[in-house]
Amino acid sequence: FRKQNLNPRELAKKICNGNTIALSRAITLVESTNPEHTEKANEIITACLPKANKSIRIGITGVPGAGKSTFIESFGLHLTSLEKKVAVLAVDPSSSISKGSILGDKTRMEDLVRDRNAFIRPSPSGDSLGGVARKTRETIILCEACGFDTIIIETVGVGQSETAVHSMVDFFLLLKLAGAGDELQGIKRGIMEMADAIVINKADGDNLKPAKKARAEFARALHIYPPKESGWIPKALVASSINGSGIDDIWKLIEDYKENTFASGYFNTKRMEQQKFWFLQTIEERLKTNFYQNKTIKAALKEKEKALEAMEETPFKAANELLNLYYNL
Amino acid sequence: FRKQNLNPRELAKKICNGNTIALSRAITLVESTNPEHTEKANEIITACLPKANKSIRIGITGVPGAGKSTFIESFGLHLTSLEKKVAVLAVDPSSSISKGSILGDKTRMEDLVRDRNAFIRPSPSGDSLGGVARKTRETIILCEACGFDTIIIETVGVGQSETAVHSMVDFFLLLKLAGAGDELQGIKRGIMEMADAIVINKADGDNLKPAKKARAEFARALHIYPPKESGWIPKALVASSINGSGIDDIWKLIEDYKENTFASGYFNTKRMEQQKFWFLQTIEERLKTNFYQNKTIKAALKEKEKALEAMEETPFKAANELLNLYYNL
Repeated sequence: FRKQNLNPRELAKKICNGNTIALSRAITLVESTNPEHTEKANEIITACLPKANKSIRIGITGVPGAGKSTFIESFGLHLTSLEKKVAVLAVDPSSSISKGSILGDKTRMEDLVRDRNAFIRPSPSGDSLGGVARKTRETIILCEACGFDTIIIETVGVGQSETAVHSMVDFFLLLKLAGAGDELQGIKRGIMEMADAIVINKADGDNLKPAKKARAEFARALHIYPPKESGWIPKALVASSINGSGIDDIWKLIEDYKENTFASGYFNTKRMEQQKFWFLQTIEERLKTNFYQNKTIKAALKEKEKALEAMEETPFKAANELLNLYYNL
Repeated sequence: FRKQNLNPRELAKKICNGNTIALSRAITLVESTNPEHTEKANEIITACLPKANKSIRIGITGVPGAGKSTFIESFGLHLTSLEKKVAVLAVDPSSSISKGSILGDKTRMEDLVRDRNAFIRPSPSGDSLGGVARKTRETIILCEACGFDTIIIETVGVGQSETAVHSMVDFFLLLKLAGAGDELQGIKRGIMEMADAIVINKADGDNLKPAKKARAEFARALHIYPPKESGWIPKALVASSINGSGIDDIWKLIEDYKENTFASGYFNTKRMEQQKFWFLQTIEERLKTNFYQNKTIKAALKEKEKALEAMEETPFKAANELLNLYYNL
């Protein structure tokens, strides 16, 4: 179909009929900074909403080198072999093909790219995490409306983006490698507490034994953590993307999680809470932007920061003076 | 001296000369909701600022029953025996004497209360954590100006308050008990990652063996965590407030921490970051309050929340419509 003839209603209809070309077109509108495109995108999303929300959303994080791409390819192919329809998205605010972004280079997932039941989309570009996260959230809705029942969202576990991804998925998986010191490097504090499962990846050949040892260590550590709100106790597993061992177990674990949290009602409660989180988050981000981007405030802020560094004022007094200035502008 | 004659400058001078009656009076002004008192308090704090900031600030948290009061008494008495001047404050937004608040009932620290080198002040009242946190931060400044070199801030580790306390101290200590299931109950997720040390308390009598076992478990778990920004690897210890064992080790550990982070410059960097955190936090809190307390917004917010629950709108669209309404008021 020709680009010129696309109106939002038609696109939405095609998406809901499983047309992935229409899906790609709509995602391009979602990612565009052109206000006309944004308006069209909003119409499409609103039309798709009733068909969305029927999937399992899985977040996958891990430092560069943890083998995310090969893991996702192996995991994705396993899922399509079970007749799942798999969409793979990414949240990586710094992403660009030249920087070797995860999904930018689709050749890393050669077989999955060719799979008719898989849909792979690189991370949208954008310098603000908020912007990238919004685009990915909206893309999830479109993918679900298009019939994808398993949404995988990949992120690099070194910045703030994994917190954003954690807030848009049902199940959060942390990929790790066995090996001296690796447990202690690269991964930001707090990520371990977000994980519903930790997978020690590349558990094959000479690496199998250290991987199993690392798995046992993590299992012990996870056991000591307070339980998650879901009542779920995070699990530690090993997997190999090369020989495929462990991949099936991970999927069974996720199905188990879905069944459990569906039965308890937690699954839907969490999705509702995530909706509300993004709603309030968007509001608060814009309130802050409006304040901090104000020219008068910008200048006054610098002065106040100097006063704070020189210990001439308390943070509370400085803040209140700035706010009084803002509300009297 | 008589209440009537107190002017802020005189009070500040007395505080800087180590007068604890003046200190108490000033704290009462800090805690007051009377705008005239707030203004006086601000003057006093500003005058005290150059004398503040020279101390070690220690946060202590743990669930009710972990033995915080007896631990702090034992720890505080050890510090005064080393000729330290110790101020004990608390952050507990729900605190009131009738609810059996930690420091409300000073009889729990009978000996420390009578110690001339100790100053104990219960948690200020207030229903917002932000308000209580501000009052405590300002009280820290006054205590330091008055010559207290060791500031202990106690909080109950079950709510949001421990995050606030973590953001106002140099060293954060988590008190725990050994015993089946205790490791898994009551303590909020995320607290363990904040701790610079975990102390298994009540390690005496029949409890000594399980306490040592718990210590070993936590040591293993802490080791698996990613390192803290400070480079510090959190430690696990045992202590008994009854027979005093381990108390000395904890103080040595804290001194070690101070020495290390002073040498690396992290100690001061962290304090500067905390100043900035409270500055921006105060700004953002008031921006939010201004928005959410607005009558028109309140009504519109309810409508939007309904639309979100019914899946009729995306969080982003709903948020943006609300913001457009707000900025056109």
